[in-house]
Amino acid sequence: MQRATPQDFSRVLSSMCTEPHPDARAAAERFLATNPGDPGTYESVAALEREVVAGLGDLASLDDAAGYVTSGGTEANIQAVRIGRNRAATRDPNFVVPDSAHFSFRKAADVLGVEMRVAPTEDGVADLDGVAELIDDDTVAVVGVAGTTEYGRVDPVPALVDVVEDENPGALVHVDAAWGGFALPFADYAWDFADADIDTMTIDPHKMGQAVVPAGGLLARGPELLDELSIDTPYLESTSQVTLTGTRSGAGVASAAAALDALWPDGYRAQYETATANAEWLFDRLTDMGYPVVEPTLPLVSADLGTERIEALREAGWRLSRTEAGEARFVMQPHVTRETLRSVVADLRRLE
Amino acid sequence: MQRATPQDFSRVLSSMCTEPHPDARAAAERFLATNPGDPGTYESVAALEREVVAGLGDLASLDDAAGYVTSGGTEANIQAVRIGRNRAATRDPNFVVPDSAHFSFRKAADVLGVEMRVAPTEDGVADLDGVAELIDDDTVAVVGVAGTTEYGRVDPVPALVDVVEDENPGALVHVDAAWGGFALPFADYAWDFADADIDTMTIDPHKMGQAVVPAGGLLARGPELLDELSIDTPYLESTSQVTLTGTRSGAGVASAAAALDALWPDGYRAQYETATANAEWLFDRLTDMGYPVVEPTLPLVSADLGTERIEALREAGWRLSRTEAGEARFVMQPHVTRETLRSVVADLRRLE
Repeated sequence: MQRATPQDFSRVLSSMCTEPHPDARAAAERFLATNPGDPGTYESVAALEREVVAGLGDLASLDDAAGYVTSGGTEANIQAVRIGRNRAATRDPNFVVPDSAHFSFRKAADVLGVEMRVAPTEDGVADLDGVAELIDDDTVAVVGVAGTTEYGRVDPVPALVDVVEDENPGALVHVDAAWGGFALPFADYAWDFADADIDTMTIDPHKMGQAVVPAGGLLARGPELLDELSIDTPYLESTSQVTLTGTRSGAGVASAAAALDALWPDGYRAQYETATANAEWLFDRLTDMGYPVVEPTLPLVSADLGTERIEALREAGWRLSRTEAGEARFVMQPHVTRETLRSVVADLRRLE
Repeated sequence: MQRATPQDFSRVLSSMCTEPHPDARAAAERFLATNPGDPGTYESVAALEREVVAGLGDLASLDDAAGYVTSGGTEANIQAVRIGRNRAATRDPNFVVPDSAHFSFRKAADVLGVEMRVAPTEDGVADLDGVAELIDDDTVAVVGVAGTTEYGRVDPVPALVDVVEDENPGALVHVDAAWGGFALPFADYAWDFADADIDTMTIDPHKMGQAVVPAGGLLARGPELLDELSIDTPYLESTSQVTLTGTRSGAGVASAAAALDALWPDGYRAQYETATANAEWLFDRLTDMGYPVVEPTLPLVSADLGTERIEALREAGWRLSRTEAGEARFVMQPHVTRETLRSVVADLRRLE
């Protein structure tokens, strides 16, 4: 007996996830009982995982990509910091993030026992002088964000790489593009693995990639980075495991492969263009109505509507979340249509 | 386009996972696009997760159970050690496991930076004098296993609790029943949360619980234990998160709720009785054929068939894994029928 109903996405403006592509859903349903964490037993899903990693490498211009399908961005971010920590010699490690970084890095700091140093941002992007000041000989990783959770901003990654090169070239450079990774290839940012000497990237198929949950992604420039995570695995037919979890979702892997097949590159380009046009439309409407709105970079609009109006929209059924500063966040996921936006704007006008 | 095919379970003898119950599969398909990691947005799956935790508490005789649905046993085991570490004052923490413990504890040691001390086993169960010798003031957790991965053995948990009480009452007592947890209520072991003062337990619906992957379980005696894991979460409608991952699988949660509804207690009891009868049947056959076989406790049979015969069975399509000592492992999951066992025994006879 199943009593509860799943989420209807028509009023969800707060989620970084979305309704999966039909091919992704069908693939997930076929692979619900598989475990890529045991590739000796489940060979077909292990082959699909190699396809997904290669596909994510295509998005990020990384040939011969190393990596794996994670449970999500949090795991990928934790693992990146763990790579940095494990390959460094220091017993007192730290890592540096901009204050726009996702809260999963706080989790990484606690889990891994690595001090997190928080650099300021200016206009939503990492302040590079501030980052430079925090890097020292014990810095094992420096993080840039491509598509911040609160404002959709993108850090100046090539310049960040230069800063790390100057201050501590042994530190790992990690880019968190968990949400933004499927938009970057079409956006106006001339960098990826080919242009900037980054080591690792988080890029999640289950966000803008239209795969089902859970299908996150960790990309690494080479397999030696993943070797830092290796744990021996007796009684599996494989002999070691680099993932943070053990048993993993074959449904997520198969759905990511299917989504990439269906959507890369044209489908993702069209999705990006629609989302960007919607973000600009919403920015213009909210600005016209007199609200302070953060200008979007990647398609995510944050606007200071005031607590009472946000609560009223929530009572009207809208799923809206807030930034730490209190702005309402409108995440332009594929399920968020122009009609949805017209509807929420109309509700907002009725509150005035 | 989907080219690969999912795993057919008919010859899988090596997996701790199984073909999900039809109700679990149906529920998973309905909840593929939900995220219990964002309970403010996805309320219905958050309610189902509370049901699952209460249901797992019923299995383990824990009223008002605290806990959550993890990505699997590895996450639950890492989190248990993390609770122990975080609530202790020591800067040089260690934890103690029997040498039968799953390799996920090696992962926990590396990830968390906690020394792992390995106690010997005797006849497949923890040697309590050996455990006692390893416990000191810096011990933050002591682990017992209920259903070892290699031999299906169950440690003497109440006596283990007494040892911890004597040696360091501040250490967390964790039981890894990831695989065995759904068998224990029907097996001949007179202990659970009601009888033994354990703090946490790993118990995975996606193993003998017939849920889809990923649906692991962490149970804790009280919410204050989970508070040790709490990380603040801005821009979610909830305010903190205790899970190791961020986005999580609503499919796994919904499927676990559906499986518990369908199978607890009568379905799980019948499954246990069938699996136990099958284990005994296989033990007798292999013993009659002259192979050294480890006598099963929970339904998992390990037998020294020799490397060549294991390879020949694998070439015949059987999915078999081995213990560190080289024995073949036959895991009596729900998909492993008497007919399957007759077939593998017939193949083995042909090799003689």
